[in-house]
Amino acid sequence: MGRWPDFVQVKEVGPRDGLQNEKKRISTSDKVQWINTLSESGVKEIEYSSFVHPKWVPALSDAHEVGKRIKRHPGVRYSALVPNMKGLELALEAGIDGASVFMSASETHNKKNINKSIDETYPVLEEVIKGAKKAGKHVTGYVSTVFDCPYEGRISPQQVLKVADRLIEAGVDDLSLGDTIGTAVPSQVDQLLSEILERFPSEKIIMHFHDTRGMAIANIMRSMEHGITRFDSAIGGLGGCPYAPGAAGNVATNDVLYLLNGLGIKTGMDETKLQEAALFIQSKLGKSLPSKSLAYAASQG
Amino acid sequence: MGRWPDFVQVKEVGPRDGLQNEKKRISTSDKVQWINTLSESGVKEIEYSSFVHPKWVPALSDAHEVGKRIKRHPGVRYSALVPNMKGLELALEAGIDGASVFMSASETHNKKNINKSIDETYPVLEEVIKGAKKAGKHVTGYVSTVFDCPYEGRISPQQVLKVADRLIEAGVDDLSLGDTIGTAVPSQVDQLLSEILERFPSEKIIMHFHDTRGMAIANIMRSMEHGITRFDSAIGGLGGCPYAPGAAGNVATNDVLYLLNGLGIKTGMDETKLQEAALFIQSKLGKSLPSKSLAYAASQG
Repeated sequence: MGRWPDFVQVKEVGPRDGLQNEKKRISTSDKVQWINTLSESGVKEIEYSSFVHPKWVPALSDAHEVGKRIKRHPGVRYSALVPNMKGLELALEAGIDGASVFMSASETHNKKNINKSIDETYPVLEEVIKGAKKAGKHVTGYVSTVFDCPYEGRISPQQVLKVADRLIEAGVDDLSLGDTIGTAVPSQVDQLLSEILERFPSEKIIMHFHDTRGMAIANIMRSMEHGITRFDSAIGGLGGCPYAPGAAGNVATNDVLYLLNGLGIKTGMDETKLQEAALFIQSKLGKSLPSKSLAYAASQG
Repeated sequence: MGRWPDFVQVKEVGPRDGLQNEKKRISTSDKVQWINTLSESGVKEIEYSSFVHPKWVPALSDAHEVGKRIKRHPGVRYSALVPNMKGLELALEAGIDGASVFMSASETHNKKNINKSIDETYPVLEEVIKGAKKAGKHVTGYVSTVFDCPYEGRISPQQVLKVADRLIEAGVDDLSLGDTIGTAVPSQVDQLLSEILERFPSEKIIMHFHDTRGMAIANIMRSMEHGITRFDSAIGGLGGCPYAPGAAGNVATNDVLYLLNGLGIKTGMDETKLQEAALFIQSKLGKSLPSKSLAYAASQG
């Protein structure tokens, strides 16, 4: 029977991965207030926005202003998605602590998402990684569709390794491996992580699960049994795709914390503060967020 | 790293554990049509109703008529909850194949639920078990609140073992161990199952998870790593408590099947048929059921 680690670090991606997929727009002031609350939860990293061109992600077009206005909490790394040098320039000006670059392990998904082949994407990312490192910033490399691709189906660990190797060579500090469409089951986690962890130490690997089929918590459990100690999650389970009603968002930070607390794993995070942040954004979005732990806690007053 | 079994048997409890907690009443004809659809899904057992006094569970007051009217599908065991000899008499007349008796591992929960102490409950159940076995029926013993009790908090494996021993001695064929309030995490599964499986063979143990905090799939995964091959679930994740908005129902059969299919575990069950049954009852209840796999599949048409 697999065991789990003593300490786990959760990165809050709700303000970026969550909000970018919500139909309802949140005002800049509300975002700032919300991120300030999240900052007090004990979380060590918040991906607070994206410097992708506003044409592609209009919900996050205020990335620069949000970065300027949030209160920097000591001990929290504020990172943002950075697609290219123009984005990096703006992000540095806004005062990011970390830059996240991104690409897909699937050729077709990368093409649809970034409008470039995988080989055409590398030089762009390499430039951003170099620039961010030169500015003394932490750099995370997101690899999406590491299990399944909506266009190509099953993605082999070898495809993921190829992209991972290239990003590590280019200088990223760590890799976040994404179950972008939330299809994976624990056997797929086994297949991928047994290959990945032969190549990279577990501290460099972050697992990023979406909960489209309700498998995310089981996949996190399984990842921890492989020694993984870092996970991305979004408060309340924010996200999903406005064009696919059933598509769920990131695994909910609240549910992850329920699991970790239950297992006696240290996180340094405060459930009550998280719940406050979740209820705040839930009221601003005007809809119930999918997190079951949150729904239960909220029903108990 | 724990492995999982090759074959798992799922018992559908939606018509009983699911419906008993839904506010909206379903007509007898709709129940019959729905159970007939479920019967074609490849499921091996359906707990189709309860012979508890209608005063306590008005939603299932038509247990007798439903039993008479459903089409018996070969290879499916039709069971029902039976609280006492009066219930058994009616249930046998309605043609049950299996009787489920029930009690709690928690003294206070048992008292609140059955209005008897644990010691006062045994003789009643023993009479029912003896009667049902004499009539040649399969008997399952439900033990509820095996992890946590809303009144007493943490329940020790020893408390569960005491009740389990007594029920096995009384002649039940198997035991269904219930995470009634859906609070357990995988470490609790470890603690309980390591004790239980020293005493009983895994074939006699059914795990029954509710998904109140979104932990059920991870707990099923963990139970399978202990060698458990039998689970209760409700189509669509039916259930929850009308008096506690956040309280979720049983783990969704659809999500369980997504997990099992993904792991390559045989179940003999047909996803499409299950989805049909889920969408049917969802439309009759007039609300979205919590299953994520169902929501996703439904959104894809």
